[in-house]
Amino acid sequence: MKILLVGASGTIGQAVEANLKANHEVISANYANGDVKVDLGSPESIRNMFEVVGHVDAVISTAGVAAFAGFDDLTDIDYQTALNNKLMGQINLLRLGKSFINEGGSITLTSGVLSREPMHGSAVISMANGALESFVKAAALEVDNFRVNVVAPVFVKETMAMMGMDTESGLSANDTAKAYMAAVTGKMHGQTLDAPDYL
Amino acid sequence: MKILLVGASGTIGQAVEANLKANHEVISANYANGDVKVDLGSPESIRNMFEVVGHVDAVISTAGVAAFAGFDDLTDIDYQTALNNKLMGQINLLRLGKSFINEGGSITLTSGVLSREPMHGSAVISMANGALESFVKAAALEVDNFRVNVVAPVFVKETMAMMGMDTESGLSANDTAKAYMAAVTGKMHGQTLDAPDYL
Ligand SMILES: NC(=O)c1ccc[n+]([C@@H]2O[C@H](COP(=O)([O-])OP(=O)(O)OC[C@H]3O[C@@H](n4cnc5c(N)ncnc54)[C@H](OP(=O)(O)O)[C@@H]3O)[C@@H](O)[C@H]2O)c1
Ligand SMILES: NC(=O)c1ccc[n+]([C@@H]2O[C@H](COP(=O)([O-])OP(=O)(O)OC[C@H]3O[C@@H](n4cnc5c(N)ncnc54)[C@H](OP(=O)(O)O)[C@@H]3O)[C@@H](O)[C@H]2O)c1
Repeated sequence: MKILLVGASGTIGQAVEANLKANHEVISANYANGDVKVDLGSPESIRNMFEVVGHVDAVISTAGVAAFAGFDDLTDIDYQTALNNKLMGQINLLRLGKSFINEGGSITLTSGVLSREPMHGSAVISMANGALESFVKAAALEVDNFRVNVVAPVFVKETMAMMGMDTESGLSANDTAKAYMAAVTGKMHGQTLDAPDYL
Repeated sequence: MKILLVGASGTIGQAVEANLKANHEVISANYANGDVKVDLGSPESIRNMFEVVGHVDAVISTAGVAAFAGFDDLTDIDYQTALNNKLMGQINLLRLGKSFINEGGSITLTSGVLSREPMHGSAVISMANGALESFVKAAALEVDNFRVNVVAPVFVKETMAMMGMDTESGLSANDTAKAYMAAVTGKMHGQTLDAPDYL
């Protein structure tokens, strides 16, 4: 398959690319570099990306920025950034990428388990994740030529290590990648894939 | 109790006001009229409303606008309106109203069952509803002096009648109002109240 991977340079994205590479042609898209550059916050930039890349069998997004901060410390900008980037950026991958995804193909976005299992500091992230999961379930009802799903990772061990946290409760990026592999090769449509279910 | 009801002029809001009035002082806030006018799309207007109204025991929002339309017909403006008005408008009721809600009080927002049971045409509404439900669950972890909940109505019979639909599967506005009464008088915190569960 020819697969466009948005967020390929990220912690999860690198693991997804490593897993895909053996059997698929991967086109990487990141903010700062990659086979093609894209800014999820700009519909124009997303449109350009698809015009450069052309038709693909699958789109995977492991991108998205949202602030983790105490509820009283979250600013208007934190909310807007999550809505423009993680939420509308990924929604626009579907809206603008629709006509570039081959029949029988798929698009897989990224939310996170904080939608359903929030923690202190996750209000903005939970909001964006919940929006994505409900959106995917709804939009899938009206998309019938390819599949639409969202992967909900739990805390990634590599991210926890970077933050100086105990990594015990996390899932490695490589194990998280398996949910994306399942979404691309499986039959699910309109589903939220909880990463730990696909080991 | 002194209760600020945002969206009091709406189909659901009128029924909530009628249910509250016997035992509580209700201050109505609508876009076009009411004891105080407010535009949920403007943080400045929300701030003004709370300054005019002062401290309250409960805030209820039965307001919020979001477009119902086929996935291919939804415009950038449809997404932005739902995010600014139904989603951020209600989130800002909590962010800006926090210091005006008395100890032991509550705030109750409105989502809708389309977050979890979408239908053709609901992508934007499902997105906003899912965001609200996950946000409320997360924010409630960090609010400890009052309770935060969201009511998820199903289709309201009066709305269905207005749209020329068969009203059989709907819930009357008066029955829907009972979930808001439960949210105000009950003990729940961080919950999504499915309207049909409170008859
Ligand atoms: N890591 C976790 O523990 C965890 C847990 C649950 C959910 N998630 C979710 O999983 C996703 C990926 O997480 P991660 O930890 O792998 O992220 P990450 O390491 O921070 O990588 C983010 C990726 O997104 C790209 N990106 C950032 N802003 C962008 C923009 N405006 N336009 C296009 N691309 C952009 C980055 O590109 P550049 O490198 O060029 O900036 C990078 O490839 C996020 O949505 C995150 O919320 C992560
Ligand atoms: N009715 C249903 O079947 C149903 C089902 C599930 C969920 N819901 C949700 O329940 C909520 C209320 O629905 P409804 O049918 O009762 O709505 P409605 O009859 O259309 O009434 C909307 C209310 O919101 C107010 N409003 C609109 N825009 C506003 C703004 N920018 N700032 C402040 N107030 C604003 C309106 O004030 P004005 O009158 O002054 O414009 C009115 O009081 C909505 O969030 C809706 O999505 C409804």
